[in-house]
Order: sequence, then C-alpha cells, then structure tokens
Amino acid sequence: MEGYRRFLALLVSALLLGFVAVVCSIVWVLRYREGLGWDGGAAEFNWHPVLVVTGFVFVQGIAIIVYRLPWTWKCSKLLMKFIHAGLNTIAMILAIVSMVAVFEYHNARKIPNMYSLHSWIGLTAVIFYSLQLFLGFAVFLLPFAPVPLRAALMPIHVYSGLLIFVAVIASALMGITEKLLFSLQSPAYSESPPEAIFVNCLGLLIVTFGALILWMASRPHWKRPPEESAKVQRPNGGAPEGVEAESTMTDCSNADRSDAGFNSEAARKRNFKLDEAGQRSTM
Amino acid sequence: MEGYRRFLALLVSALLLGFVAVVCSIVWVLRYREGLGWDGGAAEFNWHPVLVVTGFVFVQGIAIIVYRLPWTWKCSKLLMKFIHAGLNTIAMILAIVSMVAVFEYHNARKIPNMYSLHSWIGLTAVIFYSLQLFLGFAVFLLPFAPVPLRAALMPIHVYSGLLIFVAVIASALMGITEKLLFSLQSPAYSESPPEAIFVNCLGLLIVTFGALILWMASRPHWKRPPEESAKVQRPNGGAPEGVEAESTMTDCSNADRSDAGFNSEAARKRNFKLDEAGQRSTM
Repeated sequence: MEGYRRFLALLVSALLLGFVAVVCSIVWVLRYREGLGWDGGAAEFNWHPVLVVTGFVFVQGIAIIVYRLPWTWKCSKLLMKFIHAGLNTIAMILAIVSMVAVFEYHNARKIPNMYSLHSWIGLTAVIFYSLQLFLGFAVFLLPFAPVPLRAALMPIHVYSGLLIFVAVIASALMGITEKLLFSLQSPAYSESPPEAIFVNCLGLLIVTFGALILWMASRPHWKRPPEESAKVQRPNGGAPEGVEAESTMTDCSNADRSDAGFNSEAARKRNFKLDEAGQRSTM
Repeated sequence: MEGYRRFLALLVSALLLGFVAVVCSIVWVLRYREGLGWDGGAAEFNWHPVLVVTGFVFVQGIAIIVYRLPWTWKCSKLLMKFIHAGLNTIAMILAIVSMVAVFEYHNARKIPNMYSLHSWIGLTAVIFYSLQLFLGFAVFLLPFAPVPLRAALMPIHVYSGLLIFVAVIASALMGITEKLLFSLQSPAYSESPPEAIFVNCLGLLIVTFGALILWMASRPHWKRPPEESAKVQRPNGGAPEGVEAESTMTDCSNADRSDAGFNSEAARKRNFKLDEAGQRSTM
C-alpha cells in the first residue's frame, strides 16, 4: 500500500506539473507574445511551443505511463495498447501541426528552415517518433508479428520511446532558449525581464515533469502484470513483456471498480513477485 | 558470445563518438573561435565547452558504464567503486573549472550571470552531481552505511545518476544553441556557415554518445555479477545490488588476463542466470 500511495502521489504531481506547464505555455504566448492565430505571422508561430508542450511533452508523457496505472490492470492489454497508441497518435499529430506552424511562419518571413541544432534534433525526434508509432502498431498491436519478434523488439521499443521523450524535452529547452534570445530585445534576455523568468520556470516544469515520468516508467515493481491467459501459455507460468496473448475482454466496463484499490494492490504484489521470479523483462 | 560482441561494438562506438566529440569541441574553439587562454576574455570562456564535453559528458559517460566492462568483473567491487568515484570526481572538477571560466568571462565583460535556462539547468546539474558524489561516497564507498540503507538508496543513486547525465547533455545542447546565436553574426547562424554545421554535428555526436551510454547502462544482462562473498552471506544465494560485501582483493593484478574473454563470458552468463533468478535489482 505504501508503494501504491507513492505511485499515486507521483502520478498526481506529474499530472499537475504537466498541466501547469501546458497552461504556462498558453499564458506565455497570450500574455507576453502575440497570441494565437493562423496567419503566417508570429501568432501562428506561437502554436509551436503550445502544441509541443501539450502534445509532444504532456500527452506523450501520459502515453508512456498509461500501462502503469493500477486501476487499468483489470482492462485487457489490447485495450491499453489502443489507448497507448491513441495517445501517441494524438501527440504525433500535435507535433506535426506545431512544425507546420513554424515552417509556414519561416516561409512567410523568408527565414531559413532547419539551420539550428534545435530544428535538427526536433525533426529527428518527430521522424523517429513516427517510425516508433508505425513499428509499434505493426508489431505489437496487429496480431501478425510472431512472438519471438515481439519479445526481441520490446526492449528496443521501450528504450527508444524513453529516448525520444528525453530528446523532445531537450529540444523543447533549446527552443525556449532560441525564442527568448530572439524575442527579448529591450529588455534583453540577459536582463531577466518577467517573461524570461516565467519561461525559464516553464523549462524547469517540463524537466521536472519528464523526471517524474521517467522514474515511474522505470520502476520494475510498478509494471502492469502479465495477462493470466499468457501465463497459462508458458510452462513456467511467465511471459516476456509485450508477448502476452490478448484476452478476449476488450474493455474494463465489467470490472468492479469499488475494490479497484485492493485489486490493483493485489495485482501489484503479483507483479512484484513475477519480477522477483525474473519472468519479465526489466524495463 | 553474441551479446558480448554486441557490447564491445557498442562500447567501441561510444568511446569513438565521445572522443571525436571532445576533439570537435577543441577544433571548434581553436579553428573557429579565439582559442584557449585564461585572461578573462573569449579564450577563457572557450574552456567552458571544451571542459564540459570532456569532463561532464565524456568522462561522466565512461564512469556510468565502468561497472559493465566484463574484463573488470575479476576486480574487486571496492576497486571498481574507487574507479567509478574517481572518474566522477574528475568530471566534477572539470565541470566546476568550466563554470569558473564562464563566471570570470561574464564578470570581466559585465555580462549578467545565471539569467538563462541553460545556466539554471547547468548549475542545478552541477549541484546535484556534487550531492550525488558526496552521498555515493558516504553510503556506498565508506563502510559505515547499513545494508538496508544501501539497498534502499541504490535505485535512486542509479536513476539520479542517469538523470543528471541526461540533464548535462540537454544543458550542453542549450549552451551550443546560445553560443552559436551569440557568436555568429555575419554570416548569422540562420545562414548555416561552416561553423554552424560543424557545431550542430558536435551536438548530434553528444546526443548519440549519450544514447549509447544509456543503452549500455540499462541492459540488465550486461550488469556486473554480484560478489561471490556476498552470495555466500545470503541463504538464497543472492545479494541486492549495491549491498555486496567487499572482497578483500582490492586490485585485479593477480587475475589471469589471458583468459579474460572466457572468464568474463562465464561471469556474464552467471550474471544473466542471476538476473533470471530475480536475485538482483533491475537497473
């Protein structure tokens, strides 16, 4: 129960930090910049930080830890995969729209595209994110990939997902640095006007949100337990992560939510025992 | 053997990338900037990127994976802890000197300190790195900390070490962005002169080096096996990570290096079996 409460405390903190970061990105462009619009001007550019923080940071962060929410462990793995893929698709769409906003703004103002390290790493992150989503869909969601392939690719899928998330945050921090250096002229960034302090704090919020997500995502005892049906399939009772057979239950509407706390606690303990027995991968 | 070869290939790639990144940082300041000096001018500032890339990125990266080198598994854990702590101390000293260079440069030119997000995250990383080193020394190197405390703190030590490493790389990328925007005037950064392309590539080298280090550091089957003496201490034959009793052998000079490959392979297999038996933590 102590671990469950700690998870809940971290989850609430992460959601709060992420939500505040999204609000701060909106306040930044509405209060300190030119607002939001789609006219090829500065207001169109401003969609870039708002959509990156909302989609590529906040929604992606939630997508990463969605398997770890104990009250979803009653739901079928297939349903959770759809939610995971769905959230990542939303994040990808928002990231792509955020890039279109920058390209249109640059083109309208005759500013070159893709010259900065921020743009190199940001575009690389979007490309790898799209590849990750496509491969994840083809290998883990569609039922055609053989079990050994799923087992072999799962550690790479998890690692590259976390790496892309970190790269997105690093790219966001570089973007903040660029934007403040470009936009703040009198007073300059170096004179620490209120906007500079405010947006630096937005950067710290993003970093702290990312740190909490990475902590929650990398604790082995907070992993979703494998499906019962998958355990039956293997003589030793365990199944490597990502290769569990899907249960036929595709939603968790029939789950009794009144005892979700107890059940999830029991599932967590079972999960911990499975981890201890070394039956699952460790990321 | 396949896994061992893959580890070696990744290690050689990481060392090569890290070394090339260090060389590139030196070439940057010698060829494109004002060289190196200690006069309060631009040449003093230039120690900042060189020492950060050398110490805070490259040396820290090696310190992170030093336990994973299979040919060190014959050496006592205590010796490896000294090497791990020593490399991190070198990295910390270089990071502090690199910061002194910036502060002196700023003060000589009447440029405000600590206004940018780069400086906020960079200084935070140095402070947490120093704390990590101090706590690691007190808890894991000195023999006074009780075993349960070591076991409880090890996952936090590993996680915060990797998080600081990632934060340092993110901060380095922000620093590159700042420096190129400040220094490149005609032609500007947006015109992609050779220096801009060169230093962007340095940024990509740093990111790729970091990605390889994180991959090697997070594979459970590449972990150093626990000490034999520690396994004897526990009735079930295992020991939680970081709480192994130190063997009395404090160097590996008496190890027969001629069969290091075979022995390390054997140790790796033993390690993998221990992982499978769930006797060790998973990070």
